[in-house]
Amino acid sequence: MKYHTFSEDRLRNFTVAVFEKMGCSAAHAQLAANVLIKADLRGIDSHGIARLSGYVRLWEKKRINADPQIKIVHETPTTATVDGDSGLGLVVAPFAMQVAIEKAEKYGSGWVAVKNSNHFGIAAYHTMLAIEKDMIGFAMTNASPLVAPTFSNERMLGTNPMCYAFPAGKYPPVIVDMATSAAANGKLEIAQRSGKAVPEGWIQDKSGNFSTDPHELKNGGSLLPLGSDRDHGSHKGFGLSATVDILSAVLSGANYGPWVPPFVAFLEPSDNPVGEGIGHFLGAMRVDGFRPVNDFKSHLDNWIERFKSATPISEDQRVIIPGEPELWAEAERIANGIPVIDAVCKDLNEVAEKLGMGELMTEV
Amino acid sequence: MKYHTFSEDRLRNFTVAVFEKMGCSAAHAQLAANVLIKADLRGIDSHGIARLSGYVRLWEKKRINADPQIKIVHETPTTATVDGDSGLGLVVAPFAMQVAIEKAEKYGSGWVAVKNSNHFGIAAYHTMLAIEKDMIGFAMTNASPLVAPTFSNERMLGTNPMCYAFPAGKYPPVIVDMATSAAANGKLEIAQRSGKAVPEGWIQDKSGNFSTDPHELKNGGSLLPLGSDRDHGSHKGFGLSATVDILSAVLSGANYGPWVPPFVAFLEPSDNPVGEGIGHFLGAMRVDGFRPVNDFKSHLDNWIERFKSATPISEDQRVIIPGEPELWAEAERIANGIPVIDAVCKDLNEVAEKLGMGELMTEV
Repeated sequence: MKYHTFSEDRLRNFTVAVFEKMGCSAAHAQLAANVLIKADLRGIDSHGIARLSGYVRLWEKKRINADPQIKIVHETPTTATVDGDSGLGLVVAPFAMQVAIEKAEKYGSGWVAVKNSNHFGIAAYHTMLAIEKDMIGFAMTNASPLVAPTFSNERMLGTNPMCYAFPAGKYPPVIVDMATSAAANGKLEIAQRSGKAVPEGWIQDKSGNFSTDPHELKNGGSLLPLGSDRDHGSHKGFGLSATVDILSAVLSGANYGPWVPPFVAFLEPSDNPVGEGIGHFLGAMRVDGFRPVNDFKSHLDNWIERFKSATPISEDQRVIIPGEPELWAEAERIANGIPVIDAVCKDLNEVAEKLGMGELMTEV
Repeated sequence: MKYHTFSEDRLRNFTVAVFEKMGCSAAHAQLAANVLIKADLRGIDSHGIARLSGYVRLWEKKRINADPQIKIVHETPTTATVDGDSGLGLVVAPFAMQVAIEKAEKYGSGWVAVKNSNHFGIAAYHTMLAIEKDMIGFAMTNASPLVAPTFSNERMLGTNPMCYAFPAGKYPPVIVDMATSAAANGKLEIAQRSGKAVPEGWIQDKSGNFSTDPHELKNGGSLLPLGSDRDHGSHKGFGLSATVDILSAVLSGANYGPWVPPFVAFLEPSDNPVGEGIGHFLGAMRVDGFRPVNDFKSHLDNWIERFKSATPISEDQRVIIPGEPELWAEAERIANGIPVIDAVCKDLNEVAEKLGMGELMTEV
């Protein structure tokens, strides 16, 4: 596949410029670009700059408000509901996490449900804000329906990720950031581009049979929950996805299940929404609300060491600690640049032209 | 399989008598029996009275303290660490959940990490205490190592369940209560008793190959995380299990990973423990910390209706809402009694004889 390589700064500057052209404040444009480019750095290409043109199209359709008045609409000392005012999830979620962190600083923990938001990028970005404060971070979001519950062939749930992040001592944090479907949408997109078959258990066709065709979703197929089928625990993947949907949307007043607005601008949201926008759920707990930070960190270091030294099935592949692959990607990409596939570059340059700004390819 | 059928009360009375013979206070014996028999009622036979003889054997080995001084050893307004003093998890976990609920009543949410505990029965029991207060309940626990992380053949983690419970309005609560392994240990035990092969993806042999032999764990095999293999997301099941282990034990000061004491009394705990006993993590959040309770409940009712009406793949099997199967079992067993297999009855009668009390089979 043809691709071009860019520095982090170059992609970020371009992204900031696009958000500013949309009418975002300088601070919001910078923050949203940071969230997006962090995904590219961490190797989560599906959630990085490749998404930028999608945000622009939603903004053109007035489904994203570039200048939102984000506010708390309900709260207790440790809980809050935030109304994102149709803003970019990339700025709404960090606002909500900041609320959670401030509550945790005062009371030990803070929990924020968010309604009326949009796609929030990688969940890990938000949980890392908590880690910086020696807190444990939680983040989840619902998303456009692509996943069928066990025993159904109807798309009812998004890939609804959960993220849990824990600060370690001498090692990098442990960050579990996972779609609750068998395969994340990004993996499917890679298969779609390469035209390669996907493993059985990722997708079903419209009749509910396993399919290995990555394009099956266009024919009425659906993604499968983690576990793939009933025998292998797909009801658990469904249960986790349901948990994300309920905490993010039933609790906040956002849309849930099949009512979640589609991410793509060419599909219209429901005429009869059950809430506002999409929903997130974010949380922060002070580590020293349970035990001294240094005790926790030294034991988490010990946990990491012990799991890394677990007997491998094959000597050439040892156990991977959650969060490690993203750190490896980040180190590599900081050193060598971020590859962006040709199709995405073209897409971004069309955005640039539409907004009357310089191209990505020729920009310094 | 031969079995005998008992009323709920008869099993509970027998269980109370056993716990009292062990030296539990009347209140603790009643509570522990309630937790245990609730599992039998809900059809989770592996976590009910079938476990009772195991608790007795651990008590004989002085690994369970029948008269624990359970106490809070660290806290903030919304977080706490509880020391279970080697008590039955069946009484330690409800104590901790009560602490979480009281904090939630005052501050919106409450979170309790527990160390120095033992097996806590079904997680759903504890979360249901929160539901009664119109709160969302969270419960998780680590457990004896049986599960290998992705890429390893070493048993490093328990089946580490997570439970999330949400109060609905006109419908029963949504309760997600799931092992983070592909198959719960109870399902394996059923296969072991019947001698039937298990699906590929539940177990691996000591070389890391899928095995369908339910007895493979005796030959150095291990259970697999939810997802079964890397292609199908076993790293996600591992990540969830790691999350449970870290929240339950690294945060509380309990043993984690391969150091978690074995549930069976014939295996000795580690000589070099990294903490005290096993760990749990419990939480409660007030629904009205986010939106009015009636709004939440009516939307959760709508969520339930919509998911129940999702297009089924086959008309004879519609979508199941998390928590429904346990309710069906409970209704059936309240009406018709609780079946206990012959081997468990014999085991219980041996316990009765050992403790100098009347047999289960002949007791009224």
